[in-house]
Amino acid sequence: MPPVPDSLVTAARTLRRERLIDLFGNDPTRVARMTLEWNDWRIDFSKERLSTDALAQLIAHADSCNVAHWIAAQAAGEKINLSENRPALHTALRQGGDTPLYVDGRDIIADVRATQRRMGDIARAFREGQRKGATGLPLKTVVHIGIGGSDLGPRLVCEALSADRAPIDVAFVSNVDPEQLTRALKGRDPATTLFIVVSKTFTTQETLANATSARAWLAAALPAGSDPGRHFLAVTANVSAAAQFGIAADDVLPMWDWVGGRYSLWSAVGLSIAIRHGYQAFAELLEGAAAMDAHVRNAPLASNLAIVLGLIGWWNASVLAHPQRVVVPYAQALARLPAWLQQLTLESNGKRVKRDGSPVDGPTAPGLWGDTGTDSQHAFFQWLHQGTHEIPVEFVVPIRAAHPLHNQQTLLVANALAQAQALLIGRRGEELHRELAAQGIQGPSLQPAAAARICPGNRPSTMILLPVLDAYNLGALLALYEHRTFVESVLTGINAFDQWGVELGKSLAKPIVQALAENRALPDGTDASTRALVEYVRALTPKTG
Amino acid sequence: MPPVPDSLVTAARTLRRERLIDLFGNDPTRVARMTLEWNDWRIDFSKERLSTDALAQLIAHADSCNVAHWIAAQAAGEKINLSENRPALHTALRQGGDTPLYVDGRDIIADVRATQRRMGDIARAFREGQRKGATGLPLKTVVHIGIGGSDLGPRLVCEALSADRAPIDVAFVSNVDPEQLTRALKGRDPATTLFIVVSKTFTTQETLANATSARAWLAAALPAGSDPGRHFLAVTANVSAAAQFGIAADDVLPMWDWVGGRYSLWSAVGLSIAIRHGYQAFAELLEGAAAMDAHVRNAPLASNLAIVLGLIGWWNASVLAHPQRVVVPYAQALARLPAWLQQLTLESNGKRVKRDGSPVDGPTAPGLWGDTGTDSQHAFFQWLHQGTHEIPVEFVVPIRAAHPLHNQQTLLVANALAQAQALLIGRRGEELHRELAAQGIQGPSLQPAAAARICPGNRPSTMILLPVLDAYNLGALLALYEHRTFVESVLTGINAFDQWGVELGKSLAKPIVQALAENRALPDGTDASTRALVEYVRALTPKTG
Repeated sequence: MPPVPDSLVTAARTLRRERLIDLFGNDPTRVARMTLEWNDWRIDFSKERLSTDALAQLIAHADSCNVAHWIAAQAAGEKINLSENRPALHTALRQGGDTPLYVDGRDIIADVRATQRRMGDIARAFREGQRKGATGLPLKTVVHIGIGGSDLGPRLVCEALSADRAPIDVAFVSNVDPEQLTRALKGRDPATTLFIVVSKTFTTQETLANATSARAWLAAALPAGSDPGRHFLAVTANVSAAAQFGIAADDVLPMWDWVGGRYSLWSAVGLSIAIRHGYQAFAELLEGAAAMDAHVRNAPLASNLAIVLGLIGWWNASVLAHPQRVVVPYAQALARLPAWLQQLTLESNGKRVKRDGSPVDGPTAPGLWGDTGTDSQHAFFQWLHQGTHEIPVEFVVPIRAAHPLHNQQTLLVANALAQAQALLIGRRGEELHRELAAQGIQGPSLQPAAAARICPGNRPSTMILLPVLDAYNLGALLALYEHRTFVESVLTGINAFDQWGVELGKSLAKPIVQALAENRALPDGTDASTRALVEYVRALTPKTG
Repeated sequence: MPPVPDSLVTAARTLRRERLIDLFGNDPTRVARMTLEWNDWRIDFSKERLSTDALAQLIAHADSCNVAHWIAAQAAGEKINLSENRPALHTALRQGGDTPLYVDGRDIIADVRATQRRMGDIARAFREGQRKGATGLPLKTVVHIGIGGSDLGPRLVCEALSADRAPIDVAFVSNVDPEQLTRALKGRDPATTLFIVVSKTFTTQETLANATSARAWLAAALPAGSDPGRHFLAVTANVSAAAQFGIAADDVLPMWDWVGGRYSLWSAVGLSIAIRHGYQAFAELLEGAAAMDAHVRNAPLASNLAIVLGLIGWWNASVLAHPQRVVVPYAQALARLPAWLQQLTLESNGKRVKRDGSPVDGPTAPGLWGDTGTDSQHAFFQWLHQGTHEIPVEFVVPIRAAHPLHNQQTLLVANALAQAQALLIGRRGEELHRELAAQGIQGPSLQPAAAARICPGNRPSTMILLPVLDAYNLGALLALYEHRTFVESVLTGINAFDQWGVELGKSLAKPIVQALAENRALPDGTDASTRALVEYVRALTPKTG
């Protein structure tokens, strides 16, 4: 990667001293030049700490980083995941048509279509009551067992889509914590429950533990001699391990090396979506994502949603050095969006070296968190408005309601716009002094009363407006975030598709499990804190057996 | 407040250059000196970027900030919420015994006891099927309508407590987004549904909109002439507004000026907890909180959980200048803890001026976010281990399971300890080079392969171990966080009990609602971005009427 151009560093220095509202006064074309439209979407980033000049320089920087080339290389199946020598072809999962795409000489589109047909068949059979359990009763409810990428995406989509008819009940169990599975099974009828076990390797500790406990729950309740295997489907690349667990090959759907876990909701990992909302909803999700893919591949740099949002993200994180960003969806149905985005952005770009192993100069991915509006206004918006940290905020607002009630949707959308406005303009001391004085507050209490009410404003945000939150637009939104995350990785030189940092904790957990479960000694050299904690946990754990 | 002592600034400068693991080698007493116990709890902060010397200086600083005095003043009912001229007496809500406590000449403990008796009676009647709706059928399910402090606390507790019998179904509706209420009402029987409307002022926009829609839903379904008011309870300080809405005075429970919204779950705001889990569980929650209150009021500075955790929080945020912290409960039942903590800490301390109106020197509350372990390990832990930001992490780990399954609880706890260890010790390049070379990786690919796997370690964390997540320990945990937040406010000089920063957005929303709903013009001087967004929303909104 080229280093951050000096001109951008200089622009950042100037812009840090500016009041954002003044940038509007100086340039009547600002809003038009800092707004992008696509289909019925509108993305307004005119409230970011950015000038139109700096924006032009950012676009030039994207060009010199070959962003468009990288996007094309990703889509074409080049092995851009260098450290694992793999392509990153989640986009192939939503490609329309049957134009072949070869990975190691094999047409993966044919594989994708075959799997989609099976997903459609399974979903239809389940929804029509044709999938029977061990006692011959139709299966009625689903428990999806998976964690990380095998959980966050399908769970987000299952919850985000609204259904006018009663959707199939799908519970998600991810945590190894036994309480989650216990609660999910409570009141469920073993005879009519299907478990979908999702794990690329079929060795994921949490998923195997939960699947094993689920099998034991079935075995204890089903008639003697019946086959709990009929209550399981697996989504995995490891068919033999699934078979060993007791799941027939016919009940195993594939995962592929060329799809990373956090990009996998578009694959058979999304089977629960197709069961809960129907395969048609899943197909519309893919269509929306494919439409966004086409936009991102074809639009010029300056009008490319993913490239411009990626540049703004990189500008905020790497040039202005903001260490966190907040995402606030004004849609209760998107309550799980921040969690999905956390994995997407922080597992992809939460790294410190470039593809060649050399250290990244400067900061990489900023922390990302958020919660829904309007709830957040009653939780952490106080801090956004009056705290000492300048936090870039991203508002995601579907304009029309799926189920309108009186004026509630208007209140929802108006609040989003008002909060972005409040972050921009703030509230000044002089005005407050006048108002409070008019209310009769005077003397020594006037100054503290006004000071407590001042909002400095001058805080950046981006507004993403979608027409409505249906499957198509949701697919496009999630695909946009995937591409944005990739653009950010290109700008920092990071490989967005590996995640070696999660290995260390896994390997350190093993000796601790052995110490707790089998009373074994910890390895030599274990730090004193960990030793003391293990001893304490042992002392407080009831002895079994 | 005294300024940050130079000696602490110097200590921070030195400690920033230290490797945390070396601090252990230098001091065999470190773990013992940086661990606190209370009942069966253990809090180990030996992995923080802190020396025992710096810790002693922090304790001295707490002394010079009169932290113990402020804690006593809060508990005694002094009007420490200066900007609103009120006490902050959430601790009175959980006080045992009937020792009077006077606010403006009135014994509030007598009021608290009377309300608790009513809560107990209501919960008992509901759970025993004696509370009847308009058609004479017993009410069976609850929809709790409230937002912010009237939602986050009761919702957290309702979800955190496990129940061996089927608990009463309580849905929470907070967002003005019509989708949330629509989903909550789907499949519910109007004849057997109770709504609890919680709003101190009974004017909260979201809550009133949802309550009004709920009343319309009841009116449309109940027999003509029946009284939907019988399906409502209110918790509010504004009895007349509740009456005007159609709720009889007998069905209104009080809120008081001397309890802030984000500290209110211990009041009648927690009625849903008592209905869902029984009044006994609510009483145990209060007892646990009272036990923590007694500890915080009486323990010396150096062994006081709230003071030491508050000092660590202040040290990380204000001296080491970390702008965010991450909290990871290793308990699925505590999934809502981060959201509750966000409001508690960011609404309390997300401010820029001290009590006297003068600006705080340096940063105030850092961002706070998190999610459950082990799920987070598959989401954002990559970033904690290998990102470029040093993020202080707080682990919250109940040791024993409420419902054990095989070895799952052991795996859960072991993972928490292993992650904290991994953050501390990391994984070094030399070791990785050797391992990878032994696997046959060599030549130019060896260095990047090793670099991608290096974890720098040297990242701080605190481990909070509780024996088990029951109502008593949960009450103590939440009370501890309240006190910790107050200690942090005292160290920065902030009034933790007002929230003036949320007013601006509310006032700006009004003209935008009028522009969207009534096509009125926006006020003169509205910024160009907000104008353009309003116009766009209008264009995409279906015309009604």
